[in-house]
Amino acid sequence: MRYLITFSYDGTNYNGYQRQPNVKTIEDEIEKVLYKINGNNAVIIHATGRTDAHVHAINQKAHFDLLLEIPNSNLKKAMNSLLPGDIYIKNVEKVSSEFHARYNIVSKEYMYIINTGEYNPLERNYVYQYNKKLNVEEMKKAIKNFNGEHNFKSFTKTDDKREDYVRKIFSSSILLEDNYIKIIFKGNGFLRYMVRNMVGALIAVGENIKTPEDIVKILRMEDRKYACKTAPPEGLYLRDVFY
Amino acid sequence: MRYLITFSYDGTNYNGYQRQPNVKTIEDEIEKVLYKINGNNAVIIHATGRTDAHVHAINQKAHFDLLLEIPNSNLKKAMNSLLPGDIYIKNVEKVSSEFHARYNIVSKEYMYIINTGEYNPLERNYVYQYNKKLNVEEMKKAIKNFNGEHNFKSFTKTDDKREDYVRKIFSSSILLEDNYIKIIFKGNGFLRYMVRNMVGALIAVGENIKTPEDIVKILRMEDRKYACKTAPPEGLYLRDVFY
Repeated sequence: MRYLITFSYDGTNYNGYQRQPNVKTIEDEIEKVLYKINGNNAVIIHATGRTDAHVHAINQKAHFDLLLEIPNSNLKKAMNSLLPGDIYIKNVEKVSSEFHARYNIVSKEYMYIINTGEYNPLERNYVYQYNKKLNVEEMKKAIKNFNGEHNFKSFTKTDDKREDYVRKIFSSSILLEDNYIKIIFKGNGFLRYMVRNMVGALIAVGENIKTPEDIVKILRMEDRKYACKTAPPEGLYLRDVFY
Repeated sequence: MRYLITFSYDGTNYNGYQRQPNVKTIEDEIEKVLYKINGNNAVIIHATGRTDAHVHAINQKAHFDLLLEIPNSNLKKAMNSLLPGDIYIKNVEKVSSEFHARYNIVSKEYMYIINTGEYNPLERNYVYQYNKKLNVEEMKKAIKNFNGEHNFKSFTKTDDKREDYVRKIFSSSILLEDNYIKIIFKGNGFLRYMVRNMVGALIAVGENIKTPEDIVKILRMEDRKYACKTAPPEGLYLRDVFY
């Protein structure tokens, strides 16, 4: 019986989503709980993708198979009663055995939040404390250059060994609310560090170090060394996944 | 030279404001930093009052004396560079040697936040995750009964040995924003656990277990055993202090 879960998490105390030896990960916590629910039989969960250390999720999704058919609301309750307080199952649904949480994705949406006002200790793990003004009008011009299909090699992790760096950004936006800048990207897929590197480039534009046209140039270089700083993880949220 | 500081903190990882042996407190962290700045001479800080374990502050204030006269902005910078990320000095000013951060208070303002919507792991340390609907209209009627001067013995810590339980609430309000209830109290002083006990009583009204009129009765009993549950600390913020 295949289940699809929608879940949120506070990534602050985790070494990212994906299981790794000797560190705390979201995947590990959920699989430990499913192992118990599945009568002490191992369960492998397949998420839409990993999130890096200290990155958060508002609507992450994953599928897995259990030996038994459990009513959705009972499974939700059981998982939440066993999970730590920083991971929460928002929804459980049954899907066909052909459904795959990663392969079936149509689009994903990420959000990044920057505080351009004074440092706030209460949000240090949830908002990038940039704490200086940025030229938002220039950033709004610049972000449009990410829209569409591009080779994003300049915006991924330096040592990424993938061959296909082409991704399509369906839409992007920058919202200004008081001193907070919210940057949203919706696309068919994102390379490792891609959102944080795009945000880093937009910050360079907001600092008037780069121009909106430089985004086009950096994309064309297809080389990480022409890009800007990687924005820190705490401001990043996986906001939604669409099938 | 006497200084008055305004500071904010995330109380999550602290055992409250006030120094206690063998536990981490806000007061300890600030005094350790001032000891260094004051040329390795002990500094005692006098805050407006303590906050309990896991309670936050948006504008806490405290005064202290240093041997040297340091420009305000330099002292602010020096303190923030030495303090951990969950405590932040927002303002430094010089005050007369007669000024006292606690004795000179005219009023203090506390805020309490309740989430009546679905559990949110990202705000578990900052908003009380009540996660059920409350009758806000009844709570709005009930809160008015706290306004004015009352003996708050029913709303303090059971073992409080103070003799004077009389405090004056200048104003109170309840704001509803989506699924969030914000409760604000402004008064000339607050007893230990008083805000959390008043919020606990308002929640009982919101659950239709108590009526708005019961608030008047509980106040008149002047006995903690007639009160309701103490609301948890994570939803509470010391929002402002006025001189």
